[in-house]
Amino acid sequence: MPGELMVRAGGKEYPILVGSGSYKEALPEILRRLGPDKVAVVSHPPLREMHGKDLEEALRDELPRHGRVIWFTFPEGEENKTLGTVTEGYRFLLRESLTREDMILAFGGGVVGDLAGFLAATYMRGVRYLQLPTTLMSMVDSSIGGKTGVDLPEGKNIVGCFYHPEAVIADVSVLRTLPEREVLSGLAEVAKYGFLYDTEILRGMEGWPEGRPPEGYDFAPLVRRCAAHKARVVGEDEMDLKGIRAFLNYGHTFGHALEAAAGYRMLRHGEAVALGMIMASRMAEWSGRARVPLVERHLRVLLPLLRDIPRPLEVSARDILGFMEADKKRGRSLRFVLLREWQSPELVESPPPDLVWETVERTLKDLHAAR
Amino acid sequence: MPGELMVRAGGKEYPILVGSGSYKEALPEILRRLGPDKVAVVSHPPLREMHGKDLEEALRDELPRHGRVIWFTFPEGEENKTLGTVTEGYRFLLRESLTREDMILAFGGGVVGDLAGFLAATYMRGVRYLQLPTTLMSMVDSSIGGKTGVDLPEGKNIVGCFYHPEAVIADVSVLRTLPEREVLSGLAEVAKYGFLYDTEILRGMEGWPEGRPPEGYDFAPLVRRCAAHKARVVGEDEMDLKGIRAFLNYGHTFGHALEAAAGYRMLRHGEAVALGMIMASRMAEWSGRARVPLVERHLRVLLPLLRDIPRPLEVSARDILGFMEADKKRGRSLRFVLLREWQSPELVESPPPDLVWETVERTLKDLHAAR
Repeated sequence: MPGELMVRAGGKEYPILVGSGSYKEALPEILRRLGPDKVAVVSHPPLREMHGKDLEEALRDELPRHGRVIWFTFPEGEENKTLGTVTEGYRFLLRESLTREDMILAFGGGVVGDLAGFLAATYMRGVRYLQLPTTLMSMVDSSIGGKTGVDLPEGKNIVGCFYHPEAVIADVSVLRTLPEREVLSGLAEVAKYGFLYDTEILRGMEGWPEGRPPEGYDFAPLVRRCAAHKARVVGEDEMDLKGIRAFLNYGHTFGHALEAAAGYRMLRHGEAVALGMIMASRMAEWSGRARVPLVERHLRVLLPLLRDIPRPLEVSARDILGFMEADKKRGRSLRFVLLREWQSPELVESPPPDLVWETVERTLKDLHAAR
Repeated sequence: MPGELMVRAGGKEYPILVGSGSYKEALPEILRRLGPDKVAVVSHPPLREMHGKDLEEALRDELPRHGRVIWFTFPEGEENKTLGTVTEGYRFLLRESLTREDMILAFGGGVVGDLAGFLAATYMRGVRYLQLPTTLMSMVDSSIGGKTGVDLPEGKNIVGCFYHPEAVIADVSVLRTLPEREVLSGLAEVAKYGFLYDTEILRGMEGWPEGRPPEGYDFAPLVRRCAAHKARVVGEDEMDLKGIRAFLNYGHTFGHALEAAAGYRMLRHGEAVALGMIMASRMAEWSGRARVPLVERHLRVLLPLLRDIPRPLEVSARDILGFMEADKKRGRSLRFVLLREWQSPELVESPPPDLVWETVERTLKDLHAAR
């Protein structure tokens, strides 16, 4: 049995199961407990092609004779995380006669997890679902904590709700088929836990040759460690109202604007967050809030993860600040997570625009100088 | 202060405030407690025209200087309870920079309450909202209990979730401007509580001249009594999983099919439920499950509420059973609430189709003979 962590939130308690081969071990037991007739897998076509047979095998035996595994797949990419795709999902589930006694299984990265979670939360006022993340980023972050959502043209995750799965199953053996750039992008979120809570994680990453995990690296202990941090934070501040869960947005205020300005196809989420954390470390230093030097270590840990982004990155400080300004107009506060020292984050509202500008400019220069 | 009832569900506790003029009394205090900058009222244009000024007055004083009351109105009718309208709502709230610290106020009947609740549940992962029902039906039933939803062409409330308001404010003075047919339709839901739980309610209705409330009737005690039943049931079975809340669907399995078959413009929800309860009482008698005669009293209490429906009602038993069959194909079980005796409901799964057919046919004949 893989190591078991629990999330306590949404009036319930559910496990995070981390291990190699954990889904083949865990799924039969979960199905026996929940007893659905049908399991609707929400995924992308290439994932179905790669893992579909194995996944169906793990599910089949525990379904009743008249039971079925059904697939709702949609194309990859943030641009498909829309109400249009969700509506196709509702219609699909209706055609397949999915009932509130059945189950949804989110099988994919952050886009699949967010969209499948929203579908599960809102189809027939809620059906049970499982998170089976297939990317490092979703294993350590987005699959845990019940945040579901889809985008509008006006912005990411405008539509969504809190709705927790019955279990999160992080099977690190799936990472073997993940493109390396995706793995590196996920490591930015791993580093985030390091900066915020856990110096051991940083030391581990700093020990890697060229700052990247060696061949055959076993991700299970690292994923378990990050998932434990996430589970604890979610338990303490489920609805993101107490300024505790908000720390997990370290690097994200810059990062979201970067993603939007550069285009979601150009920059992976984790890459944007990595750049955003470098910017945040610089802002903390320049504003005098940081009591220790931060930038150098951020560059050391994070620049190696940005190896595969297109250079030069076609994005300007003007674009990035433009997106921040637009977000602010929509009632979203310009709130930054900054470090006072290692593992000591604080929230800073609306810093001086000049400081934001200089921070962004300088970091983009660093990035281009890094090759 | 109007009489105060509490709902305990969704991990919280919130009041139902019933009285004449209760919203003018209650709103300022609630706003002081919740402290929004903006209140987005979700409503229909005629309601805004009729009550908008009064409502804004009750809200204005407790908003900060830079605060605002904003209106999202959409046309009346079940056909507008769609994802399209909700999407317009998201965009409206974004344009008006509504944040998670602000508030939504549902001001209308069941359609407004369901849609506004879903909007509140899913905009930015949830903003707080109030239910201010303006119809008798929504005061005694749909505004209480956190069920939110919108329709797809395939069926009613396919999309939705459970999301509870901060308070329900039932101001019976608003009923004075409600068309009488709407009041009669709402009384069907009142009678439902009588049949299921409360013989006093039935005796009261039976005492009315011609079976309809006399001029100047004070609805507050009756609404409070019904709301108390609803609050208790929701507290016992919030998610509708224990077969307790399901009793509130008395008459609704027939009723939904009737509404769909006759067209939502032809038949009010309460009218369809009234007919559905007559059908259910007959089915209970004919199937031998009822230990006391039921039909006669159902006709006595309910037929007077159906005075204003179009006759002949253009709907056939074939259409009604067709809709039930289609619902069943979509995975919704054909589950009927039947009475064994007064105030003693039970759930019956998939009764013989012949029995359903005969029940429907005979009741439609009763209806047409009743004039």
